[in-house]
Amino acid sequence: MRLSNGWVRQAVSEAVSAVDRRWLVRALTLAENGLFTATPNPRVGCVICRSGRVIGEGWHRAAGEAHAEIIAMRQCDNNLRDADVYVNLEPCAHEGRTPPCAPLLAAARPARVVIATLDPNPTVSGKGVALLRDAGIDVVVVPPSDIIFQQALALNIGFVSRMVRKRPWLQLKIAATLDGKTALSSGLSRWISGERARIDAHYLRARSCAILTGIGTAQADDPQLTVRHVHTPRQPQRILVDRHLQATSTLRLFAGGAIVASAQSVPDFFADGVEVLSLPDSSGRVDLLQLMCELSARGINEVLVEAGRRLSGALLAAGLVDEIVLYQAPRVFGDSAFSMFDAPAPSTPAEAPTFALRQIEPLGDGDIKIIYDSLTAQQQLTAGIIDAATAKNA
Amino acid sequence: MRLSNGWVRQAVSEAVSAVDRRWLVRALTLAENGLFTATPNPRVGCVICRSGRVIGEGWHRAAGEAHAEIIAMRQCDNNLRDADVYVNLEPCAHEGRTPPCAPLLAAARPARVVIATLDPNPTVSGKGVALLRDAGIDVVVVPPSDIIFQQALALNIGFVSRMVRKRPWLQLKIAATLDGKTALSSGLSRWISGERARIDAHYLRARSCAILTGIGTAQADDPQLTVRHVHTPRQPQRILVDRHLQATSTLRLFAGGAIVASAQSVPDFFADGVEVLSLPDSSGRVDLLQLMCELSARGINEVLVEAGRRLSGALLAAGLVDEIVLYQAPRVFGDSAFSMFDAPAPSTPAEAPTFALRQIEPLGDGDIKIIYDSLTAQQQLTAGIIDAATAKNA
Ligand SMILES: [Zn+2]
Ligand SMILES: [Zn+2]
Repeated sequence: MRLSNGWVRQAVSEAVSAVDRRWLVRALTLAENGLFTATPNPRVGCVICRSGRVIGEGWHRAAGEAHAEIIAMRQCDNNLRDADVYVNLEPCAHEGRTPPCAPLLAAARPARVVIATLDPNPTVSGKGVALLRDAGIDVVVVPPSDIIFQQALALNIGFVSRMVRKRPWLQLKIAATLDGKTALSSGLSRWISGERARIDAHYLRARSCAILTGIGTAQADDPQLTVRHVHTPRQPQRILVDRHLQATSTLRLFAGGAIVASAQSVPDFFADGVEVLSLPDSSGRVDLLQLMCELSARGINEVLVEAGRRLSGALLAAGLVDEIVLYQAPRVFGDSAFSMFDAPAPSTPAEAPTFALRQIEPLGDGDIKIIYDSLTAQQQLTAGIIDAATAKNA
Repeated sequence: MRLSNGWVRQAVSEAVSAVDRRWLVRALTLAENGLFTATPNPRVGCVICRSGRVIGEGWHRAAGEAHAEIIAMRQCDNNLRDADVYVNLEPCAHEGRTPPCAPLLAAARPARVVIATLDPNPTVSGKGVALLRDAGIDVVVVPPSDIIFQQALALNIGFVSRMVRKRPWLQLKIAATLDGKTALSSGLSRWISGERARIDAHYLRARSCAILTGIGTAQADDPQLTVRHVHTPRQPQRILVDRHLQATSTLRLFAGGAIVASAQSVPDFFADGVEVLSLPDSSGRVDLLQLMCELSARGINEVLVEAGRRLSGALLAAGLVDEIVLYQAPRVFGDSAFSMFDAPAPSTPAEAPTFALRQIEPLGDGDIKIIYDSLTAQQQLTAGIIDAATAKNA
């Protein structure tokens, strides 16, 4: 079976009804329960309906625990006769830490399975769909042009990035004044934004798998980089880019363990619970792309960067910034304050790194949250989902 | 009669009905027809209704032409028996270039006059209301807490500023990247924003009475500072801040006349159609507050600033920035590019100049228009309106 882009579009534009959309949205809402915990797995929710009534619901909480589909099936004693199954990600087809969902679903013989996005995981991608179809079950896949697809992609953007690009989704968090300044030249940067912005930033931390900062910020502000103000059972990994291994072992972000990425060779001992990675590039700096690949290999889906202008600028120059979350405060610091990006100037305005505007939200106290996306990253990931399935089913 | 703040509130909160609000909004819409032309007069619209039907409408086009109330009264042959009159600004009571409206309205004996804001013009402020009330006419004034008052104030913010503060409302227009940069250090600044933002900026020019720039921008970009892309019969004054009179007579903004504010003595001749003002402050710079007072004395209500970081910074430091209109483009220029404000750094973030967020609007192409207001200017003007009326009626 060949799963071409056109095929997906055609199969779906006829088949996704308003009722289907409602239950897909419900599946996404369920999946969001795993926002802080499902990593390194994707966030998945499942709704099973018969005659317009919900007969089973489930969501995946954490790796090693039951998948969403299995929890939902249990609620109706695996009896899916005449039932419609809604799931935000293609059911898995591979033996993992738990038995695969697609064959179990096929065996329970629902009338239909409606899927918001295919799973780009090379061990799944299209195989789940094929397995269900081969069992004679009607399978509907939402096309990439649909807002439901886009919401499903957004919910697992890091997982998809890791599967498709072998690197995490990188989100840069910046708190700045309306004139684009992140700190006074005296170094004072605290309380640029109001309370709601600061709490919102902890929500960003809670959903990320790792928080990345640079030695400049670590030494100047000594941040903990832990999730506070938001309830979560899991703290993200902390990662410090420290080219020359200048960090002192008393840094607060080391408490409870951290990873240090340096360009030096790995020392016998650096600090308690701290792993040192040696990732020099040809110019003796930390190879940021290689760091991302390494994090991806360790199951890191989403990286949140909270750094100063040097590391932010280096990530921008390396083309690794997928998303900018800008908390813009209604203040002016003036020219002498620090700017956001220490990056090479473009030759002309048209050659400047350019982003897509995804979201604007006033947060009170005059603060605005503005989210910019890489112009190409989402398209790459969408194409990657299709390509993975196509390759698997060619 | 004493017109205290409390009195205004009480008189109105009982009396402004949903129907009244509808006609006041209509009066404001009519007034907006004079947005580009009424200067130095305020923008005024008038609606006359009887038994829920409009029997007269008018708006003030330009100084020397008929006032809104007079035009509306003509349409019903000055027969206002049992009629309600709606007007966004208190009817005038003083002999100007046209006879005053309040006595003419009083003579036509409407049932009621509903006014969105009092006129802070010392020759009117409360006198119009008193004249109508003395004639036994029911007069309703919208309280400052009402959104209709705030819209009416916004429409004539420059006129009110000139009456209350003896200086124009100063609006700073900035086109910047998401990292707060206005130009590459090579000087290239064109096309930071997309087309819609650029056209919107011409709308700002069209409603302003004067456009202010500095010698740096004039020499680097040689802008015309004229209204284009928006239809208007009037071009704003152009004003150049040029401390040392360095400008060459061939600058494009001089074509058709301009004002140069310098710290030098006034030369016998500078350039065709160009008036030079000598406004040195104690440190030999142009006294920007004095310049604003001078412009106010000449009937300039609204000043739009399109300048570089030096003049913008000086205006900010002088506390003269009432409003910032920021066109934020989804690009990054990096640290080496020019920032917005060459102004002294605050000692702490809390001491930084702080604004109120008034409006956010996505403009397409990833551009955002963000409007910030001075935290205090609007309150000052509201208080000024009340105080002027109170003083007049004490
Ligand atoms: Zn599964
Ligand atoms: Zn009048």
